[in-house]
Amino acid sequence: MVLNIAFIGFGVVGQGLAQILVSEAESLRRQRGFEFRVVAIADKVKGSVYDPRGLDLTKLLALVERGARLDEYPSSSKGLDSIKTITDTDANVIVEVTWTDLRTGEPAMTHIKTALARKKHVITTNKGPIALAAKELLSLAKKNGVQLRFEGTVMSGTPVISLGTRNLAGCQIRAVRGIVNGTTNFILTEMERGLSYANALAQAQKLGYAEADPSADVEGHDALAKVLILANTILGGSLVKDQVPCQGITGITAKDIQQAKAERKRWKLIAAAALKESGGVEAYVRPEKIPFEHPLASVSGATNALTFVTKYLGEVTIVGPGAGQAPTGFALLSDLLDIHRTLAK
Amino acid sequence: MVLNIAFIGFGVVGQGLAQILVSEAESLRRQRGFEFRVVAIADKVKGSVYDPRGLDLTKLLALVERGARLDEYPSSSKGLDSIKTITDTDANVIVEVTWTDLRTGEPAMTHIKTALARKKHVITTNKGPIALAAKELLSLAKKNGVQLRFEGTVMSGTPVISLGTRNLAGCQIRAVRGIVNGTTNFILTEMERGLSYANALAQAQKLGYAEADPSADVEGHDALAKVLILANTILGGSLVKDQVPCQGITGITAKDIQQAKAERKRWKLIAAAALKESGGVEAYVRPEKIPFEHPLASVSGATNALTFVTKYLGEVTIVGPGAGQAPTGFALLSDLLDIHRTLAK
Repeated sequence: MVLNIAFIGFGVVGQGLAQILVSEAESLRRQRGFEFRVVAIADKVKGSVYDPRGLDLTKLLALVERGARLDEYPSSSKGLDSIKTITDTDANVIVEVTWTDLRTGEPAMTHIKTALARKKHVITTNKGPIALAAKELLSLAKKNGVQLRFEGTVMSGTPVISLGTRNLAGCQIRAVRGIVNGTTNFILTEMERGLSYANALAQAQKLGYAEADPSADVEGHDALAKVLILANTILGGSLVKDQVPCQGITGITAKDIQQAKAERKRWKLIAAAALKESGGVEAYVRPEKIPFEHPLASVSGATNALTFVTKYLGEVTIVGPGAGQAPTGFALLSDLLDIHRTLAK
Repeated sequence: MVLNIAFIGFGVVGQGLAQILVSEAESLRRQRGFEFRVVAIADKVKGSVYDPRGLDLTKLLALVERGARLDEYPSSSKGLDSIKTITDTDANVIVEVTWTDLRTGEPAMTHIKTALARKKHVITTNKGPIALAAKELLSLAKKNGVQLRFEGTVMSGTPVISLGTRNLAGCQIRAVRGIVNGTTNFILTEMERGLSYANALAQAQKLGYAEADPSADVEGHDALAKVLILANTILGGSLVKDQVPCQGITGITAKDIQQAKAERKRWKLIAAAALKESGGVEAYVRPEKIPFEHPLASVSGATNALTFVTKYLGEVTIVGPGAGQAPTGFALLSDLLDIHRTLAK
């Protein structure tokens, strides 16, 4: 089966996937029988294109590269908005990569619901809808006989979602715990090297790790969205945002960092979720002092890591990138390959 | 489809899987629709049993626990040897968990070939046949339309084989590199704490990590078998043992350990395999000094870890158990669940 792909959104992440698809198309076809066409792209700013015969991604990337609109692409339908691109094209896989809104999940929430209701597979890196409504969306997907995949919502392409829901299935995962925000980990690492919080933040902003308004990162909201996703998709929880205590790193001082070091420990912003003895799941985000010997302590800079606490394997920790254009693009590719593998059976 | 399972071998590892199956049968059935029967067990020492209606694992485990032979199990066929248990029973999945022979791969090699030729799926934790003949066995499986899975051959249940062949498929893995032998890592960790090599080895033997003849571990042969498996199944190599330089840890002195420490480095027995510029794959096993900052440096005691060096994710490292009854039992369960998932599509 050929996957007919439509991109909703064509910013850094969407272009990241497009670049990988261009580079790897030939080897994916040869080695894995992975056949695809990108038939449509709709972007709020860049315009939209649709051609059921397939679009030339190299040309489209070049257009975007020189700041042109997608509409300049020759001979194809144009002007479809994102909803029509989902409903009125023959795409069977929707790549939802618009901006993240952690409060409402929109517009991605509507895009995903619309696609699933039309029996189209959805892959997304958008934390908003999955953090807010994973269970509802997964059951909508199931009801419609299609797949919803979201590997890139936590730790980008480092495969924590598939590890938690598939590889470690049957292992009785009792808790997950880790560093899922690269910006704060970078700041804490720089502070350990002697920078003040303000200077470390400025450095993170200069390198593009932190936004001009860094609150989503430093107040822990980004980590909170990710721990909701982990709790509700890996541990079977039904948590909502207000049930998860969330504390960021703004209160950590240079003195705290030095004191921890004297105890052979290191401050990390930890996102954690665990099964409760009494049933159900609990979660939190807060800075914790991690002993030097623990694998999470040696995770420095913008790198992320997650420890699975299990019945049969004890602790298993995976360390890898948590952001970036190529890693997030790869997350989407891994979801596409999974859908292809499932449909090929 | 119900999986009809036969165990060839019923030592520590086989009993580990049996215990997990007993504990988890109900939840696996309920949560994943995983239905199975263990129909036969053949063990060179403990005897054999066969009952097409399914055996009671709890009873069998109790028999073995009190040192009795499997033949004491009531009302079933007895006396089938391991080959007949593969060929003359209605098992459709063979769990090959006999002892490892890294020189010939026997008797597991014959067991696996016999099972695949009879169109039976095989899961194994036996390093011998996979290190010596992964390609031949995988193509035999493919030819017969069945699966051969071997997650537990490297890092027990820590899912490095499935990560390398599935989750990270499409990520362009260029190299793997890690700590895949727990005994030597335990010895090196103890030496860093001040023990001599001889005392650290004695300690490892006392705790059951090292054999009375520790050469397979300390000379690097166990790590060599594992790196052959990684090179040939994840990187597409066709390496044989003699092509892989192998050096163990017997030459590492207390002084070496202290010198590395002064450089903020730590000796680790590293098994590595990489794509060559010129095509093909190269591999080695040797002690290396790893900088404190690298995730592999903080892997202490009997824990194992593997770093995947990739095009799109950079480095991804997984840290987890490398041995033990429950982790290795879980490796087999994860292979069983994968086969079940594939057949259910």
